[in-house]
Amino acid sequence: MRVEQLRGDLVEAVHAVHAAVVDARGRLVARTGDPDLVTFWRSAAKPFQAVPLVADGVTERFGFTSEDLALVCASHSSEAAQVARVRELLGKIGCSERDLLCGPHPPLSERVAQDYATRGLRLTAVYSNCSGKHAGMLALARHHGWPTEFYTRPEHPVQQRCLREVSSWTDVPVADIRTATDGCGVVCFGIALRNMALGYARLAIADFGLRNADSKDARPIRNPQSAIAQSMLRHPDLIAGEGRPCTEMMRAHPGRVIVKVGAEGVYCAALPRDGLGVAIKVGDGHALASALAIAAVLEQLGLRPRPASLTARPLVNTRGETVGELRVNGGLEQQNDGSPRTGEK
Amino acid sequence: MRVEQLRGDLVEAVHAVHAAVVDARGRLVARTGDPDLVTFWRSAAKPFQAVPLVADGVTERFGFTSEDLALVCASHSSEAAQVARVRELLGKIGCSERDLLCGPHPPLSERVAQDYATRGLRLTAVYSNCSGKHAGMLALARHHGWPTEFYTRPEHPVQQRCLREVSSWTDVPVADIRTATDGCGVVCFGIALRNMALGYARLAIADFGLRNADSKDARPIRNPQSAIAQSMLRHPDLIAGEGRPCTEMMRAHPGRVIVKVGAEGVYCAALPRDGLGVAIKVGDGHALASALAIAAVLEQLGLRPRPASLTARPLVNTRGETVGELRVNGGLEQQNDGSPRTGEK
Repeated sequence: MRVEQLRGDLVEAVHAVHAAVVDARGRLVARTGDPDLVTFWRSAAKPFQAVPLVADGVTERFGFTSEDLALVCASHSSEAAQVARVRELLGKIGCSERDLLCGPHPPLSERVAQDYATRGLRLTAVYSNCSGKHAGMLALARHHGWPTEFYTRPEHPVQQRCLREVSSWTDVPVADIRTATDGCGVVCFGIALRNMALGYARLAIADFGLRNADSKDARPIRNPQSAIAQSMLRHPDLIAGEGRPCTEMMRAHPGRVIVKVGAEGVYCAALPRDGLGVAIKVGDGHALASALAIAAVLEQLGLRPRPASLTARPLVNTRGETVGELRVNGGLEQQNDGSPRTGEK
Repeated sequence: MRVEQLRGDLVEAVHAVHAAVVDARGRLVARTGDPDLVTFWRSAAKPFQAVPLVADGVTERFGFTSEDLALVCASHSSEAAQVARVRELLGKIGCSERDLLCGPHPPLSERVAQDYATRGLRLTAVYSNCSGKHAGMLALARHHGWPTEFYTRPEHPVQQRCLREVSSWTDVPVADIRTATDGCGVVCFGIALRNMALGYARLAIADFGLRNADSKDARPIRNPQSAIAQSMLRHPDLIAGEGRPCTEMMRAHPGRVIVKVGAEGVYCAALPRDGLGVAIKVGDGHALASALAIAAVLEQLGLRPRPASLTARPLVNTRGETVGELRVNGGLEQQNDGSPRTGEK
């Protein structure tokens, strides 16, 4: 599978796609490119960095709602309501945005970015798409009585706790995880796509019987797997934001998929009906190509149709003329069993 | 050859490089990846779209200086002085910026773009990096008495003239050139890297004896090959702009190289001392990767050292921490003859 940029009828640029689709036992169900490609999980690891908050009782102690938990798992768009909610969350744990160590950046939503630029808004740490994750890390430190200073450093107990959590969900021993510094300053995890997909497959088989995705019941769920999966399924608007791919794909198939962007061409997804996890990487890190690729992969796995905005993207020149398009070519190859996996079970 | 983005010590993204180095007889001297890759020449074709201006006597008739000609060949940075010069050029031919059909876009120089954004400057067509080329096309139309309206259309004599010129410099028959619409609205040309390189090799063997690159003599040169090559060699500051890769590479080796960016990962170069032409394409179109790649290719061909800014580029996160780097891995493979080509003749 590759994503091609056509100008007229000639391919002008090519983006290679690698993908692994696995079940909760780690069996490879489908693939394209190299499912064993080792790359960084980054923002797609957020749900697993959030697990300790539920497992250790942090969410219960500080009265986190499922919206709060969704924001901890999010790469949000810095929308005003999202930022306000992170500020509230910080208030619940007795911290403020001055405790956040994530760096500022223009909002991931172009619309929000333009709005803030026009209004001359000063982008502080709380506007980082990772501010929910950072607030969650501060909450974990507060809960355990660990220092809230320098919580991004690899040796800090928060980062060590997250590293062990990632290891246990992905079956990659701690010693085999390649670590580096993420865009927001915390530790990020280099593991194979197949193992990322396993983590998401395990999210996909969360016990949704306990409380289904439509429930308005706000009582905390103590099972991390279910709490994380349900907070994400319930709040597609918080996981990314208006008009962004994760939100669009989750809204198009309510309760049927969790989609989470990484960085540098990574997307992951959990398919509760099928008990499958998906991880993809566009080799060169192209953001739009990876969004088109995950939409195509999910469609092949039964989430039909793709949102129109993710089927193909017109290439528009400076005069506003459509001069080509970005589109996916090819699909997943099936592994192991002989029956087509359509997801229509 | 590939360009790798490392985060810590793990490769996070990969950009494949294709390149052809040929002499003026079209012999392949060195390569990497696929030298026969067909892609669009776009902005790297500008010197050849400028040829009719010299060949048909347009530059002489309207009193174009070598600076004017350099701007016709440029992807300029929209610097104030560059824009002022394009306005002057339009004045010389009795046109105004209202006749330009290129679309506006933020300046290619980030510094200039930020400056204009801060000052709220309205970006009109004359600020397009292609405004020199468009002014040249208007001049060609004026000279021949062709309509100045709709000069971007494929059937307009200006575009037909450029198409034939591209064909004759690259040895690709007109019928075999894949055409489409460029970012600025004119016709662009899909040809193999090897043929792009041939065009530049022919620029490289221009008769520099007539008037050398240091000459201050402003009289027009009637030989298109020499006029174009010398205008570019003399004015690295106009071909791109302050801090941009083409300008940096040409300034680092005055008179020894013409470097011209394309779009979507294309760079071309002419090496007068060696009589060689170079064309590269980063397959996914990554702009910075292609700048690092052409600098590495030119270094291997004898232009040592690369400008420091193009040796490797630190990867800096939102906190201002250096967390990795973008760097070239591998090099050209030699073709045909047995001796290493160092360019140190």
